[in-house]
Amino acid sequence: MNEKDKWIEIIHELQDSICHSLEAVDGKAVFHEDSWQREEGGGGKTRIISNGNVFEKGGVNSSIVFGDVTETMRKQLQIEGSKWFACGLSIVIHPLNPFVPTIHCNYRMFELYNDRDEVIDRWFGGGTDLTPYYLFQEDAIHFHGIYKAICEKFDPAFYNQFKKNCDDYFVNWHRNSERRGIGGIFYDHQRPTNEKDGDFWMRFAKSCGDGFISAYIPIVEKRKAASFTEHNRYWQEIRRGRYVEFNLVHDRGTLFGLKTNGRIESILMSLPPTVRFDYNYQPLPGSEEEKLLDVLLHPKEWAGIITEADKNEWAKQSNTC
Amino acid sequence: MNEKDKWIEIIHELQDSICHSLEAVDGKAVFHEDSWQREEGGGGKTRIISNGNVFEKGGVNSSIVFGDVTETMRKQLQIEGSKWFACGLSIVIHPLNPFVPTIHCNYRMFELYNDRDEVIDRWFGGGTDLTPYYLFQEDAIHFHGIYKAICEKFDPAFYNQFKKNCDDYFVNWHRNSERRGIGGIFYDHQRPTNEKDGDFWMRFAKSCGDGFISAYIPIVEKRKAASFTEHNRYWQEIRRGRYVEFNLVHDRGTLFGLKTNGRIESILMSLPPTVRFDYNYQPLPGSEEEKLLDVLLHPKEWAGIITEADKNEWAKQSNTC
Repeated sequence: MNEKDKWIEIIHELQDSICHSLEAVDGKAVFHEDSWQREEGGGGKTRIISNGNVFEKGGVNSSIVFGDVTETMRKQLQIEGSKWFACGLSIVIHPLNPFVPTIHCNYRMFELYNDRDEVIDRWFGGGTDLTPYYLFQEDAIHFHGIYKAICEKFDPAFYNQFKKNCDDYFVNWHRNSERRGIGGIFYDHQRPTNEKDGDFWMRFAKSCGDGFISAYIPIVEKRKAASFTEHNRYWQEIRRGRYVEFNLVHDRGTLFGLKTNGRIESILMSLPPTVRFDYNYQPLPGSEEEKLLDVLLHPKEWAGIITEADKNEWAKQSNTC
Repeated sequence: MNEKDKWIEIIHELQDSICHSLEAVDGKAVFHEDSWQREEGGGGKTRIISNGNVFEKGGVNSSIVFGDVTETMRKQLQIEGSKWFACGLSIVIHPLNPFVPTIHCNYRMFELYNDRDEVIDRWFGGGTDLTPYYLFQEDAIHFHGIYKAICEKFDPAFYNQFKKNCDDYFVNWHRNSERRGIGGIFYDHQRPTNEKDGDFWMRFAKSCGDGFISAYIPIVEKRKAASFTEHNRYWQEIRRGRYVEFNLVHDRGTLFGLKTNGRIESILMSLPPTVRFDYNYQPLPGSEEEKLLDVLLHPKEWAGIITEADKNEWAKQSNTC
């Protein structure tokens, strides 16, 4: 099997396993699949869950797209070449309960070819990040701990580097640099080298993808039955507004998709189901809402507060390298 | 009184009269004013109404801002000069009842100075446009009729030209060129000439600003007590999602404000209070929702279906030139 086919297989296996684990924890809703074709080449499988016990709206989408390098791509992506290929998995899950965090994840491979169809460039990118509405420190430590454990199996420098990338990317710059959430990991433009070849980056993405389940599902299980008030829900919808602001104003992937004739419904599945925009909403001083805001304005080193017991637990949970 | 002061007076008078007429038709909520200062020069008066009988959220904002021409302005606005001044009125009103349309309006003057503080360039811009959730043809004809009558008092070419500008500007290009609403008028970069001097453009903006009341308030009065269902409200929130998409992805004013340290809460007061983003929402064939969508995809010449009786009525209502 060539590397492209191997990557496609990884993406589709992750799509299946993640959908199954989300359906299992929801207990009611199932994913519905829309298969779509792209006029310029390729297509995708958009899988949507909605109105579940746990998940109000979510998408677990795969796409395999290719085509000629256009003028827009040359300018916006600053790439050369004649043809391109991209295959990736893109996930956004918006739970109903304000105590269950929203999660986003994306793993992708990009290839460029010359006019003799030879590969002239190739890179991997991806990451997973968490957007809670209320801060549970143990959840933040668990989530970051899983990704730290995965990263360390591949390169001891990865976690710090990719955690910082994530904190620096998901930022509402127009809101006093407030982060969208409590981060996770994010990497981009990772080109295979002798030391870290294509197989390495595929195994890394596969481990991170499997990590979605061990990082997220235990948090969902722990919080999904928590009772919540109208006020908690109101705050969730206010925060979802910030999610919309980031995705529509700053997210490179969303804007590139909107400006290059991507499949709109698949791209905008990321937007939350119900949202509020109040004028000048401010959480009360000392409230749980303000505590969340504080860590969004000042990202923390969650993995720095990890105990040995945590480490052993995560090593077991992330044993998929 | 110099022209700058005259313009400032027009803007503040419009702000007052429009707030009064909106409060009167609401009957419950009143505007609350936040005065703000801008570090780089100037400030504004942001007036917000919320949770009224009729208006769920709205802002009637004035600002008088000035400063040095920055590198960002040189690039994004493609302007030369040493210092700048801008004064404008910006209104967005989101009613609760899905049968009452949202309205947006903006009137502004911009001046550029050289390093001896001499005016080297100056232009006027503005417009008013309507975003209904359900189409009432008589409302669309009334609204466009008022602005056509106002335009014709100033220049017979204005209405067609400014109506087309409006249809071409408020477009969700990523949604198959669906318009945000049924339009109105929009003009920009109107520089005083011998024939149409600064006084002309100020009188035009004042008439258009006064026209806000005669164009909008009768529609609000007619629709505000209409009973509506949860389904009507659901559709309104879906359409509000498109309003958010336009403002955050395409609106030049919003994006410029977000990227140049404008007052965020004043800029984003334009976003609707409650919003829904569903995956692939489609109105039923033949429904009232689909009828609206049809005119958003294919803008109509509303003023072309005007009767003589309408004309006389509007001439009376817009008698403020």
